[in-house]
Amino acid sequence: MSAPASTAAAVSRLHVPSSEELTDRTRRLFEATERTGGFVPNWLRAFALGGADNDRLNAYLFPLLEGSDGRRSTLTAREREIIATVVSVENRCPYCHTLHIDGLARHLGDHHLATRIGLDHREVDELTEREHALAELATTITRAPREVTREHLDHLRELGLDDAGIYEAIQIASVINATNRISIALAVLPDPETFDAQNAALNS
Amino acid sequence: MSAPASTAAAVSRLHVPSSEELTDRTRRLFEATERTGGFVPNWLRAFALGGADNDRLNAYLFPLLEGSDGRRSTLTAREREIIATVVSVENRCPYCHTLHIDGLARHLGDHHLATRIGLDHREVDELTEREHALAELATTITRAPREVTREHLDHLRELGLDDAGIYEAIQIASVINATNRISIALAVLPDPETFDAQNAALNS
Amino acid sequence: MSAPASTAAAVSRLHVPSSEELTDRTRRLFEATERTGGFVPNWLRAFALGGADNDRLNAYLFPLLEGSDGRRSTLTAREREIIATVVSVENRCPYCHTLHIDGLARHLGDHHLATRIGLDHREVDELTEREHALAELATTITRAPREVTREHLDHLRELGLDDAGIYEAIQIASVINATNRISIALAVLPDPETFDAQNAALNS
Amino acid sequence: MSAPASTAAAVSRLHVPSSEELTDRTRRLFEATERTGGFVPNWLRAFALGGADNDRLNAYLFPLLEGSDGRRSTLTAREREIIATVVSVENRCPYCHTLHIDGLARHLGDHHLATRIGLDHREVDELTEREHALAELATTITRAPREVTREHLDHLRELGLDDAGIYEAIQIASVINATNRISIALAVLPDPETFDAQNAALNS
Amino acid sequence: MSAPASTAAAVSRLHVPSSEELTDRTRRLFEATERTGGFVPNWLRAFALGGADNDRLNAYLFPLLEGSDGRRSTLTAREREIIATVVSVENRCPYCHTLHIDGLARHLGDHHLATRIGLDHREVDELTEREHALAELATTITRAPREVTREHLDHLRELGLDDAGIYEAIQIASVINATNRISIALAVLPDPETFDAQNAALNS
Amino acid sequence: MSAPASTAAAVSRLHVPSSEELTDRTRRLFEATERTGGFVPNWLRAFALGGADNDRLNAYLFPLLEGSDGRRSTLTAREREIIATVVSVENRCPYCHTLHIDGLARHLGDHHLATRIGLDHREVDELTEREHALAELATTITRAPREVTREHLDHLRELGLDDAGIYEAIQIASVINATNRISIALAVLPDPETFDAQNAALNS
Repeated sequence: MSAPASTAAAVSRLHVPSSEELTDRTRRLFEATERTGGFVPNWLRAFALGGADNDRLNAYLFPLLEGSDGRRSTLTAREREIIATVVSVENRCPYCHTLHIDGLARHLGDHHLATRIGLDHREVDELTEREHALAELATTITRAPREVTREHLDHLRELGLDDAGIYEAIQIASVINATNRISIALAVLPDPETFDAQNAALNS
Repeated sequence: MSAPASTAAAVSRLHVPSSEELTDRTRRLFEATERTGGFVPNWLRAFALGGADNDRLNAYLFPLLEGSDGRRSTLTAREREIIATVVSVENRCPYCHTLHIDGLARHLGDHHLATRIGLDHREVDELTEREHALAELATTITRAPREVTREHLDHLRELGLDDAGIYEAIQIASVINATNRISIALAVLPDPETFDAQNAALNS
Repeated sequence: MSAPASTAAAVSRLHVPSSEELTDRTRRLFEATERTGGFVPNWLRAFALGGADNDRLNAYLFPLLEGSDGRRSTLTAREREIIATVVSVENRCPYCHTLHIDGLARHLGDHHLATRIGLDHREVDELTEREHALAELATTITRAPREVTREHLDHLRELGLDDAGIYEAIQIASVINATNRISIALAVLPDPETFDAQNAALNS
Repeated sequence: MSAPASTAAAVSRLHVPSSEELTDRTRRLFEATERTGGFVPNWLRAFALGGADNDRLNAYLFPLLEGSDGRRSTLTAREREIIATVVSVENRCPYCHTLHIDGLARHLGDHHLATRIGLDHREVDELTEREHALAELATTITRAPREVTREHLDHLRELGLDDAGIYEAIQIASVINATNRISIALAVLPDPETFDAQNAALNS
Repeated sequence: MSAPASTAAAVSRLHVPSSEELTDRTRRLFEATERTGGFVPNWLRAFALGGADNDRLNAYLFPLLEGSDGRRSTLTAREREIIATVVSVENRCPYCHTLHIDGLARHLGDHHLATRIGLDHREVDELTEREHALAELATTITRAPREVTREHLDHLRELGLDDAGIYEAIQIASVINATNRISIALAVLPDPETFDAQNAALNS
Repeated sequence: MSAPASTAAAVSRLHVPSSEELTDRTRRLFEATERTGGFVPNWLRAFALGGADNDRLNAYLFPLLEGSDGRRSTLTAREREIIATVVSVENRCPYCHTLHIDGLARHLGDHHLATRIGLDHREVDELTEREHALAELATTITRAPREVTREHLDHLRELGLDDAGIYEAIQIASVINATNRISIALAVLPDPETFDAQNAALNS
């Protein structure tokens, strides 16, 4: 089997900033990401075109999604990942589909379960009732936000969420709708590194 | 004519933080907004439930939309307002529809023109070709992002935008998709103050 | 602020009959309308292209919507206005959106409430249960008429409407679907006069 | 083969006026219709619930669709029938589907051709270019009126229609959207008489 | 009335195999069909382009739909016809719409009833509850298969179907979705013979 | 990391035949599949409920998709896999999405490229023009078959396909629409074995 044909595919439809063009904050983020994860994901490279705006987007996104920066989340990390994943699949964002199912899989320790949740959470009996309700809310916010009703929110209250927790879920679902749209408009290339284990097994 | 029946309507489906519950940064924002505009818009009051997360969202949003904070925008202020308006109408967000058409009207000095742009920009010959192209991009990103093609982006390049400018447009359209979804999920009440001039004329 | 740029915009995509081209009946209607309301709305000017056919359409429309001509309506005037408004917003007809929200506002004495009803009646607690049910019926007839069920009609019966009243609601919702389509196909220009109060306040 | 099971099916979901409840004008219409066509179609019987309003609707509809009452139509009778038929099929109105395909078949002298036009006019090479353009306009007005563009109207001008003729087509397509919606909401029963020839052949 | 204009219309957009090009199995099928029904339906003539593949498709289809070949069906013949008909109408396949309504009419001995079932089974009180449930399942599988829920299947169990019967219904609905798509892509011409009785009555 | 939670998830919503319940032909197929691939995929186990019908479906499917049984395909194996994959993703069939992307990856020797093709073939420059045209045809047949035009078919002819080849593509796209619908209605569980390489890497 020869080298995969896709290695030369473009990372984005728009200009991808070179190292010298990055803001200091972005450059430090790239270095930290490469240290932890081994590579800089294509979305970070493509979004860097936003310069200081993008630094401000990241300053909002990372604490919200990852619970870093001293933030106290009401949702569990697993719930936040589930929301980001079902939104990305619903929007059919190729990059985000791949990224968030992979992220959920790492969190769960199980690619099979992560993929099943992403592709149809309703059929996954392993989820809690609260996780199902959050996934439903996120899907509705994505596909037809005007169909969110007071009953949806009341149902989440009955499952133990307070209003700050519900708002956190709404924020995550909504901002992933934004990042999905940016990724789709740019046609960000799914990270080849995500497929290394599968490709290694295939060619062994 | 007695007092309008709508004054007691709820500002949001979720808890609206009282003054004491606000972060310092939000409190200062409210004070500044009231000084400049005469009142605190309902979306600011409702979104404050997000606490520090919401402060970070605002820190991203305001420079992007308003060109404040020393930010150098490639798009004109009018173009940024047009994008926010057409996205809000496309999503049928009642609050955002009212807010952004009103904002565009203030910018243009003409409510008739702002409403026509919001309700169907394609029929507004007063727009430049570049404004039409940006409005089309924003509408497509909103309604069916996967239909954005390379040709859309090339067309914007031909109309004089560089890649940073195109990315700015994509960011604005995308983040308004997020704020629209939050506003719809919360059913934020349109600001009564926006209708003062019309109601005064009606009852005079 | 200079004169608004939109004053020269075309009233319709098709020929707008001059005064001499009008039928006698249309000419008298124009004169009466100008006397009462101060101007001839653009839809009347544009639809006049239909000649005698249009006179017959008006002879059907006016008694149905306005209860004039000795007609005994089962619905209240407010209910008839609500139906016309929610249909027009659902169809995203720019002209009709503006016209009918304005008409409802005049009836209610409140532009805030009229706009809220138009943009999302479900969130307006000030409506009666019967008004909500009629607005739902009108929206369903507009968006997906095949989803109207016997249960919809039975629900209206339980709320005190007889079959003639239900039929009146169905007729209004249906014929507004016709006038919306004509207005959209012609791209009838929203009446500038509707925005006078707002523009005066803006430029004062 | 025993008597068809459907003879007892209800004509409408709402009250169908008895002979004594009809307005004089409706009664005369029923008598004339029965004389000419052998029976009173179910839509006439069901719509009669509208009383005087319905008489005014008929006074608009009949001259527009049938060219009676001294009216000078720009469109041919065949073009008017094609428009009414494609709109009815697009709306999936069971009653109107059956009625208008049958009417078109009588006009053409060919049920095969009428059915092909109704179910997909694009594949019917026997239509003129003008008929195809009118059918496209009618379909677009029905399904997504906001997608009607100036180019659609210019194309009809190039095919020889003047603005009054284009307006006639728009009116017919639009009002059939109204009558379709009324018929669907009432679930008007397709006329059994339309199927007599087929049933006779089946049971012979 | 002159000869119908449609007789020269093409049977398919793709090559229609001549008699010499048919496989032996297809040729025997044509002969048998002509003997029984008087003519070879256009779908058989158009699908014959598939050669041996098409023979294998027919070997699957015929026993499934017609209960021939010693197959023991759980569904009644009437239920199988209803499923094929509602799917074909839902997909708006002109050929299949005509073919399956005609087939259902022959089975029922009533074209009126067959047409009513095809165009809106929900309004046909003559159907059993089980037939309604099967028609709903078939419609959902066609329009939005992901909306099929466990509750749909449980409801069919409560109505007396075992899992093999439910699977039979799912198979029929699904494969008709395949044959509808082939027929639409080929634009198979509705069989003129289906309209003979109506045309004879028209021209008598 | 403990054992994945998903191992006990149901293979199908309907009864999954035990070994004794299988037809002889199905039993032999299972044995052959296990020998070659190491396990029996869940769709084969779930579809076995169809008994002899399912054997006939397989007798049609396997030669069509895999070119076995002495069948001479006009399309390349890669083209057939691309069609099956884009249809499955378009239908959002969880099982088929996973199965066909995996199958395409094995054929290409590259999971990254297969996933990119499945999630958005338009952005994959590595595909030939003919592969893009076939993927477009398959997507259109799936999503909105009535939008397939003569121009689509002519375009494929220009790219070197004869009518038998085009028909082969239409058949594959159409029958995958059938198998997708069966898999969705049954909620067939994605094969855990497909995720072994990824899970092994995750837990190493």
